[in-house]
Parts: sequence; structure tokens; C-alpha cells
Amino acid sequence: MDPNTMTRERKKIILDCDPGHDDAVALLLAHGNPDIELLAVTTVVGNQTLEKVTRNALSVGTIAGITGVPFAAGCDRPLVRSIETAPDIHGETGMDGPEQPESTIELDPRHAVDLIIETIMAHEPGTVTLVPTGGLTNIAMAARKEPRIVERVKEVVLMGGGYHVGNWSAVAEFNIIIDPEAAHIVFNEKWPVVMVGLDLTHQALATPEVVENIAAVGTQPAKFVMELMEFFTKTYKDAQGFDYPPVHDPCAVAYVIDPTVMTTRKVPVDIELQGKLTLGMTVADFRAPAPADCNTSVAVDLDHEKFWNLVTDAIVRIGDPTTGAAATTAATPAAAGIAGEAK
Amino acid sequence: MDPNTMTRERKKIILDCDPGHDDAVALLLAHGNPDIELLAVTTVVGNQTLEKVTRNALSVGTIAGITGVPFAAGCDRPLVRSIETAPDIHGETGMDGPEQPESTIELDPRHAVDLIIETIMAHEPGTVTLVPTGGLTNIAMAARKEPRIVERVKEVVLMGGGYHVGNWSAVAEFNIIIDPEAAHIVFNEKWPVVMVGLDLTHQALATPEVVENIAAVGTQPAKFVMELMEFFTKTYKDAQGFDYPPVHDPCAVAYVIDPTVMTTRKVPVDIELQGKLTLGMTVADFRAPAPADCNTSVAVDLDHEKFWNLVTDAIVRIGDPTTGAAATTAATPAAAGIAGEAK
Amino acid sequence: MDPNTMTRERKKIILDCDPGHDDAVALLLAHGNPDIELLAVTTVVGNQTLEKVTRNALSVGTIAGITGVPFAAGCDRPLVRSIETAPDIHGETGMDGPEQPESTIELDPRHAVDLIIETIMAHEPGTVTLVPTGGLTNIAMAARKEPRIVERVKEVVLMGGGYHVGNWSAVAEFNIIIDPEAAHIVFNEKWPVVMVGLDLTHQALATPEVVENIAAVGTQPAKFVMELMEFFTKTYKDAQGFDYPPVHDPCAVAYVIDPTVMTTRKVPVDIELQGKLTLGMTVADFRAPAPADCNTSVAVDLDHEKFWNLVTDAIVRIGDPTTGAAATTAATPAAAGIAGEAK
Amino acid sequence: MDPNTMTRERKKIILDCDPGHDDAVALLLAHGNPDIELLAVTTVVGNQTLEKVTRNALSVGTIAGITGVPFAAGCDRPLVRSIETAPDIHGETGMDGPEQPESTIELDPRHAVDLIIETIMAHEPGTVTLVPTGGLTNIAMAARKEPRIVERVKEVVLMGGGYHVGNWSAVAEFNIIIDPEAAHIVFNEKWPVVMVGLDLTHQALATPEVVENIAAVGTQPAKFVMELMEFFTKTYKDAQGFDYPPVHDPCAVAYVIDPTVMTTRKVPVDIELQGKLTLGMTVADFRAPAPADCNTSVAVDLDHEKFWNLVTDAIVRIGDPTTGAAATTAATPAAAGIAGEAK
Repeated sequence: MDPNTMTRERKKIILDCDPGHDDAVALLLAHGNPDIELLAVTTVVGNQTLEKVTRNALSVGTIAGITGVPFAAGCDRPLVRSIETAPDIHGETGMDGPEQPESTIELDPRHAVDLIIETIMAHEPGTVTLVPTGGLTNIAMAARKEPRIVERVKEVVLMGGGYHVGNWSAVAEFNIIIDPEAAHIVFNEKWPVVMVGLDLTHQALATPEVVENIAAVGTQPAKFVMELMEFFTKTYKDAQGFDYPPVHDPCAVAYVIDPTVMTTRKVPVDIELQGKLTLGMTVADFRAPAPADCNTSVAVDLDHEKFWNLVTDAIVRIGDPTTGAAATTAATPAAAGIAGEAK
Repeated sequence: MDPNTMTRERKKIILDCDPGHDDAVALLLAHGNPDIELLAVTTVVGNQTLEKVTRNALSVGTIAGITGVPFAAGCDRPLVRSIETAPDIHGETGMDGPEQPESTIELDPRHAVDLIIETIMAHEPGTVTLVPTGGLTNIAMAARKEPRIVERVKEVVLMGGGYHVGNWSAVAEFNIIIDPEAAHIVFNEKWPVVMVGLDLTHQALATPEVVENIAAVGTQPAKFVMELMEFFTKTYKDAQGFDYPPVHDPCAVAYVIDPTVMTTRKVPVDIELQGKLTLGMTVADFRAPAPADCNTSVAVDLDHEKFWNLVTDAIVRIGDPTTGAAATTAATPAAAGIAGEAK
Repeated sequence: MDPNTMTRERKKIILDCDPGHDDAVALLLAHGNPDIELLAVTTVVGNQTLEKVTRNALSVGTIAGITGVPFAAGCDRPLVRSIETAPDIHGETGMDGPEQPESTIELDPRHAVDLIIETIMAHEPGTVTLVPTGGLTNIAMAARKEPRIVERVKEVVLMGGGYHVGNWSAVAEFNIIIDPEAAHIVFNEKWPVVMVGLDLTHQALATPEVVENIAAVGTQPAKFVMELMEFFTKTYKDAQGFDYPPVHDPCAVAYVIDPTVMTTRKVPVDIELQGKLTLGMTVADFRAPAPADCNTSVAVDLDHEKFWNLVTDAIVRIGDPTTGAAATTAATPAAAGIAGEAK
Repeated sequence: MDPNTMTRERKKIILDCDPGHDDAVALLLAHGNPDIELLAVTTVVGNQTLEKVTRNALSVGTIAGITGVPFAAGCDRPLVRSIETAPDIHGETGMDGPEQPESTIELDPRHAVDLIIETIMAHEPGTVTLVPTGGLTNIAMAARKEPRIVERVKEVVLMGGGYHVGNWSAVAEFNIIIDPEAAHIVFNEKWPVVMVGLDLTHQALATPEVVENIAAVGTQPAKFVMELMEFFTKTYKDAQGFDYPPVHDPCAVAYVIDPTVMTTRKVPVDIELQGKLTLGMTVADFRAPAPADCNTSVAVDLDHEKFWNLVTDAIVRIGDPTTGAAATTAATPAAAGIAGEAK
């Protein structure tokens, strides 16, 4: 669509998600950003049941006007543990707040695990990045079913964990603790794993200024995001005492777009599977420089402004797919700057 | 082939195995017994690497003259744990002892997990029995990828575990401990699980009399089994101090053929995932009568003669597929009796 | 009292207990049997709180007419775990059923741990047997506080555990699971440990015949035991479905008196500390002959008649301490036989 | 000795330690500081065997000229785990570097556990602070043997753990991981626990300036500390890559002297006992404000200058006990200031 972006290589990603308010923003960012080529969207049980998060993914895809991208449903429960969802944070639908449109996207008949495998195997080695923003069940299943994807994937940039921060227990994060065995599988394979965890995402707060900037875009998708953030603000306040909600998942997409949006550190990370207090902890060993063959790194510091500009810009670019109307120009100076540059 | 058996319903099974000396006997029994309809043979890492056990399965299928049955390879490693094989028991090839013929069977291109799912979904609900005789990785993956198989399967009759006996640790058995998370998945699904564990299979000893009876059949498959047993006798003596080797896997097939070949007891069984001494233990709770919704039972006492007659009879029926020659008639009185009756 | 027994060496024991119906019987057996020299009675939280079991121990001592033996209270909670008592089995007092007399025994001011240490150190090496019939907190504390007792103790004959039987979980027994860390300490020290577990004690049933024989002794202590058994019968029926209650603790004392009252088997035993289903299991490894330095053995088969004759005989010998009346002679032929022989 | 300090209440402490280079400094600080009344010094296996650390404690006491304070040896091994010492950090003697004098202090015959209990019970409730700077075996044993000490102790100010830092594993610290069950006991009792962990002590670096200031004191004890620091600098460089060694243990003593030497934060802390990667982690839950009944707090930020001035001042005050010579005055301006003020 954009002659400038056509000339450069776009980053191919598969977004494996469980929308989820922040997954929705991640999907909009992935779709709206010109540097991303969204190969597939797959869903997995997490913030809500598979059925609900799949419906939510299709809704977001419809709102964003995504076409030509396969959406497929994956695992409806974790590998070993019982299902645990997060209605306190995401509501009964998993994406409470805005009204959801009827989806115009048809679900791909393939299982997410197969879609992931086939998509990776259909592209050149080293070109596809996996971006999981939910539990890691689908990704772990894919790695076990087709081990060749491991060396074929460019990297796994996942939202999950936290080296010094937990949210579902003192030291564990929701996406990891709901399927720690799957996380163990993913972190122990030899592909590069970038863990965008709570240490980073608790910096990605949707402050009033951020929400206003998005609202100022004035499109249906912008309104949708604004309403998501309203609900998210309230539940994060009530359930976890946050003044402004951390919008986790788009951080992982933002890293793929532009790694300079955050700093990262190479460090061995493994998953605790049998701790009573520490189950699902992403145990990072900072005691010494990471060994040469260390395949894991963790996100440390976020450039808050750059991150939210990426998000706002993507919403601007998406426009108003259902009406075809353009976004209000110059929603924010920064976003306008990016958007203007891209035109 | 046998008019008598055509009139009655044969039991449809999928044999998921890791040959393995006793897996080989299980496959011969499944193929040679007229009450079994072998729908598929799938392989999984276990006694040896996936590559080796798959080659072994094809060899046994070739020796037995199996045609029209898909053979597919499955998972090449356990879900979470590192690969552990059993060369001390099964040798470097996983089926040391006899020479292996070139296989004339072509491997099905599908992944075992998909073949299992498709086979179950293609048959009437309640008609297909899963018979896993290796680690439970494939079965667990299938249950997670297509949860509908769980209520569709007739039952899972597996060789593994032991309620009072271990072999790979004080209280855990090889098939379970090599992938305890997979076992946890299988034992906790709502399908009926019959655990044919070491408590039972340590009664299925290949005594000299048993081996002689098999040898007396005089066919190539019989010779093959005899040579398997020779090797197995030696390794079980050296590695575990047995006078005669327990031939585990065909016990599970025998149960499907004729449940009266053993007694079973309904009892809740679950898998220990975090014990230091008890990892992979099949923990059975005998303290009270099993609750009504208990879906697990364990094999207790074997009818040694009936079991081995089933095995010998199957070998008799298989004959000499490569030469077309018939088996020596009346290899043993008992086997001859069964064989004769079946004619 | 008995010239025959004075000439032979009596077995010196320290009884560490948590009375408890069966602990009461153990104490009576230890006191009444002429081959036992009871050096000390120590109490530990278990069947009920420390306060209650200590009061119970003093009551039983009073009923039995024990004099000159120090009674000391020990630990009021397990090392690491929270307190768990067994009111369903032993009632609110820990020894419900009979009325308890005012104790005429004064509690020793020393802590049980110190009394145990001092008693062992005051006797010749290899002469004192520890007989714990409750949780192992006191014994573990003593071994840690004064490591020299380990090589000085003759052996530890404990009631607890079960290699194939559990009662407080599928595979764990009450005395072990209430303080598994203490049990781990005791089983891993280099003293000889004889585990008289549920495998054995579930054979020590107080059948109606047994109870009648005891009742026939006709003394206050006999009446007391009879009333204990009445209550015990009821709770074991209600809580665990037993027709007749297993009278665990005197089995350990009986073994010290006469090892031929049961068969034992040398086998490595260790305690599971981190299993989810198997916490506190006494894991016995029967896979191979026990190594030469194996310090643990387990009780297997009980001589039911010999055991109960020992108990009844002890009650006969105790007579009626408060009144000074002698027991009804020849309470049972067998007990009379033993009692007669001893005169 | 000092009229100013006589008028104010000195803080009564029991130092339970495993010298150890930094324990030695802790002992010197406790002895030399006028605000501390050292009631007892007890030793426990840790940096080296009990025998070695006890000898070291006596040596340090001799060098410091400590008189009238009982020194007692305690547990020679952890409660449950095997002994693990730290020769890579502390050398074969546990206090390698300086030559050690013959001790002129006689060991108290009591067990450390009893000395701790008796000392606490002999003083007014709320007046005695426990300062453990080694593994927590003695303290845990004391709390179990005499539960009344728990409410009688003023607080437990311990060196150990780390809420975001580990040294003996990725997330566990030596003093805790060598006896995690003991630590679990101590952290779960209802006394106030101040955890001075690696988060804090890694700020207490013995920089060249610090060491020079101490050396400048010019006494035998100062020389002794200087030589300890030389060795400690080398091993911490070699074993853990530190430029300057963190001198952990005196930080706990310093907190007792003057809590403003560091900031602390009230937060629930518990000990992980069954993690594979996280065994012995001091799991702190920062997700919400600590509840009102929270009894644990953690040290956060150190006032480096104030801390080292306390240490240097104590060394100045100790002078040269063996020769009776006074310390070089005005070793450092700051220390001199303190020392001057105290005169």
C-alpha cells in the first residue's frame, strides 16, 4: 500500500494471542504498522476460553479491516494444568468494554498448531518471527509436533514472565503460570527468545494523555481502543491497584517493529515447574555475563513515547475500514509526524 | 480371513509403540489375533530414538506381513523432559537380537498425532481403542490438539506404570517416567484408562517353556520372536536381575482381545509430577472403593497360560508371510487348540 | 519382679509417643512386658496437641502404675509443616472413650529432646532402642542437637509409614506425613531403622476375640483398653471403613520384645519431601537386594496370635495397680500360658 | 566504658554466626560499638564446618579482647539437606588470610540452641535481638525447642536471602539455601524479621578507600581486618567476578545499632522449599502494600559511608587488646568524629 514500505523488507510475524484488551491493541499495531507483514493470527486459551478469545480476535480483525490473513483457533486448555482465565482483568467476554461487531472474517479450518507449522515451513528459514502474547500452549505444541520449526523461526518475541515482577503470584506472570510446561518447552528450545515481561510492560502504561491521543484519531478503531482502555483502566485499578493499566502485548509487536523501542539484556532464563511459591517463575540468572550460546534475552527499559507513538500511528494508518473514512490527521504531533513521513 | 471372526465385531485398535522387543510381540499379537482390527501403528520416542523405533516398527510389520495398515511416526522427544532411552534393555537399535529385514512398508506421511486423531474421528464413537505401549507423548498431544477424541475413544489400554512396582526408579516405570507430563494428561482425561502396569507384566515372563512353544511354530516370525526373547532374556538378567524377562507390551493387546486374561481393579490413579523420589509414579489410591466416576483401573493378576497361548496362537496364524508357508501345525497343544477352534 | 527375667538382659527403650489409643496400648505393653526396661516416656504433637497427648501419657502411666520412669513433653509442632492432628480417629482429647484418671505422675521438667539425649548418653553404647510411635519431630531434633546419639542408639524401631499402604494420603501414613522433614532426618541417619508401617499394622486388628480376651483380664487397665478399643473400632469404621481397628503402635514395642512376632525385610527406604501426591511417602526400593550398608528394614508379616498374646500378657502382668488386686488368672489360654511360663 | 552510652539503653544481641570473613567483621562491630551489648556468640555450620567456624569465632573474640561473653557451638549440619560450605569464598579454614592467634576464650559447654534459649528467657521480653549471620539451623532449632522465645525476642535481624539477587543459585543466597527448611521456620514465626539480604549487602563493598581507612587505624585488629579483606577481595573477584567484596554480615549488626544506616521495606517474605531452580529463594511479594500483620521486612538501600564509619569506629574503639595500646587516633575524619564524640 505504501511505496516507501514496499521497498524495504517487512517483518513477517505470526501473532499467537488470547484477546484480551492488550492483545487487541497488539493486533491493531501489527496490522497498522507498515513494517510488519502479518502472516497469521492464531488464538489460544488464556485471558478467556478459546471460544471467547477466538471470537474476540475475529472482532478485532473485522474492526481493523484485516483481509487475507488466516485466523485459526488453537488449544483450548493448557498442556498439564487446569484452565485459568482472567475475568477480573478482561471481563466475562475476555474483551469487555466496547461493543463487538459481527465478524466478517471466517475462521481458518486448520488447527492453530498446524497453521503455525505450515506458515513457518512455507517461508524462507530465518524470516518468520513468532509473537505469542498469551499462554504458550500452541507454540509448545508446534515445536513438539514439528521440531524443524525451531531452527527455521527467526525469533520468538513473547509477552510473558518477568525477571523481578509477578502479577499472578509474587514472582510469576499470568501467561507463563497458566501453562508453565509450555513455557518451559518454549524457553528451552534453541531459537532466540526475547522475553518482553512485566519488568518492561509495567512501563507501558495507558496514561490519560495516551488515551486522549488515541481518542483524538477519531476513527471507529480508535474509539474501540479508547473503550478498551476505559475498561482496562478500571479493572487494573480494582484488581491490582494500578493507576493506569499496563498495556502488555503490543510491546512485543513494537519490539519486532523497532528494537530500539526498548533495551534488552541477554541472560539465561528458565521456567520453574515445581516451586510451591515460584511455579511459573521466569528465573533469570544475572550473576555472570550470559554465556555465548545463551538464546534468551529480557526486555528492560521502554521508550514510553516511542512505543505509544507506534501504537497511535498504527491506529491512524488503519483509518476507518468499515466506512472507508480517513483518520483525523495529526492526531498527535508525534504520530502525525510518523504518519506524515510514511505518506 | 476367518469366517468365524468375520461375523463377530473385531476390536479396532491403534497401536502406539516404541519397538522394543515386547512392542514387537505386541504388534504380532495384534496382527495375528482374529479379534483385533489394527487400524494404525504409530511410533514414539522411548526404548530408542524415534528414528530407530520407527524403523523397527516397519521391520516387524514386514516380518508379520502387515498390509493396508498405516504406519506413522510421531513425537521425537517427550513434552518437557529430556530424552531418555533404554539401550541396556533393548540394545543400540532398540530391537537388538534378530537380523532385521528391509522394510517393504512405506511410512505414512502424516504425523502420528494427526493419524491418531483422524483415525478416531473417522470411526464411530466408542469403537476405537488406543493401545499405547511406549511413552504417552503422542496420545497426550492428540488429546490436546483434538479434545473431541477423548469422548470418542472406547478406552485407552496402556502398558505403563505400576501401583506397587517400579523399574526405572523405586516406584516409577519407564513408559511413564520418560514423559510424566504426557502421562498426567492421559490419566486425567475422562476416557476409560486401563493401566496394564508392572504389577501385571512382571507375571508375563517368557519362561523357557514359553520360548520353546513359540520356537516350535517354526516360521520366520516365530524365529524372530525367539531371537528377540534370547536377547531380552540376557539384558533383563544383566540389567535388572530377572531370571526370565517380563514381556510387557502384548499384555495390553491381550486385554483388548480378552479381558479375562487378567483381573483388573477400578481405582483412582494419578501421576506424580514433582516428587524427587517419586517422579512419574502412578499413584493409586486403594484406601476406599473407587468413586462412581473413576475412569481408571489397574491390571492385577495375569492368567499366564491364557496370555501366552494368545501370543503363540497369533504367531501360528501369521504363518510365514514372506514365503507363504503355513506354520507348523499344533505348535503347542494349547495354541493348537485355540488355533484349531478358530478354524 | 520375675526371677527369670532378672537374669536375662532386658531391652532398654525410650518410648516417644502421642497417645493416642494405640500409643496407650504400646505403653502398657512396654510397661507390662518383663523383657522391656522402659527408660523414659516422651511425648510429641501428633494424634492431638502436645498438651493433650502429654496429659494422656500421664494418665496411661497412672493407670498402669508406672513409677520411676521420667515422662517429658517435647515438640509442640512439626519442624516445617503446620500442625495436623487426628481427631476423627482419636477424638477431641486424643484418647476419647474411657474416663481418664487424675495423673499421679509428675512431668519431668526437661524437654523431651534433652531427656532422650541424656538417657542415650547415660547408657552404654548399643543398649538403648528408640521406639517412636508418633511423628518424628523429637527424634529428629535430638539427632540434630546431639549427633553422637546416632551411633550410640541400638536401633530405632518406629511405627510409621507403609511401603505399599497409606492412610493420610494415597501413599503416605499419618506419623510420617505430619512431619516429613523429621522423618527424612531419622531415615537418613546411619542408625538401624526398623519401619513398622501400615503394611504390618493393618494386620494387627483388634478383632472381637482380641477385645474379649483383654476384657476377660478383668482389671482396671484391661477395662481401660477395652474402652479404648470400643472407641477406636467406631472411628476406624466411620473414618476409614475398617471392620476392626488396626492397633499400630504396640507392634513396634512387640518387635523389640520379640522380633519373631513379625517378618522384616532389609530394603532402602527414603522419605519423599516434595511430591504433590506423594509427600511423606516412605519410598522403599525393592528392585534389587539391599546393599550391604542399607540401614533400613520394613516389617512385612505379623504373627497375629503371638502379637496379641504379648499384649494381653502384659495387661495381665500389670494387674490392678490402683487397687493392688491381681489380674484374673488365665485370661486366655495363650496369655495364661505365657504369663504362667514367666512366673 | 563510655559515660554517654551508659546512660542510654544498649541493644542486647545474640550473634549467631559462621566466621567467615564478614562474620568476623560483624563480631568486631558488635563488640566495638558502644550501643551494642553482646550477650552471646553462637556458631553454626555454614561457611565452613562447625569445628572450623567455632575456632574462628574464638580467634576473633581473642583478637577483639572479648571477655565475659559466652561462646557456644551449635548445629554441625543443616536440618534436612547435606552440608554445603563455601571454601571458594572463605578458604579451607573458613577465615583464610590472616594468621589466627591461639584462642584465650573457653567454649561454653552448652549447646548453642540452649544458650540462645536460656539467654532470651533470662532477659526481659522484647529486649533481645537475634542477629544470625549464617545458616538458620540454630535459630530454627531454638524456636522449635522453646516456642516461647518467639514472642520474647525483640526482633530477628538476619543476613541472608535477597529479594532480587542470588549468589548460590540464580535466585538464592548461601545462608538460606544451605538450610532452607530452617529459614522457612524462622521466616514463618511471628517475630519481626528484618532480612538484610544481598540486595543490600552488595552495596556494602570493601572498596580500597574503605580498606585503607581501616588499615590506618593501625592496631592488630585493624591489621587483621585488612588481611581478611585482602583475601576476601581476591576470592570474590575469582569466584563471583566482584571488583570489591561485599561485606555482608556487619550490615545486620549495623542495622541494630542504627536503623537509619539503611532503608527497609515491609513486605511478606517466604522461603521456597521445593523449587528446582528456586530452592531457598526468599520470595517477596511486592504486588500490594504489606498487610498489617506482616512480620517481615527487607533491607533496600545502604548508606555506604555511615555503614563503614560504624565499622571503622568500632575497630578504633577496640584498640589493641593484646598490647593494651590505643588505636591511632583519627583513623578517618568520620570515624574520628564518631570516636571523638564517644569519648
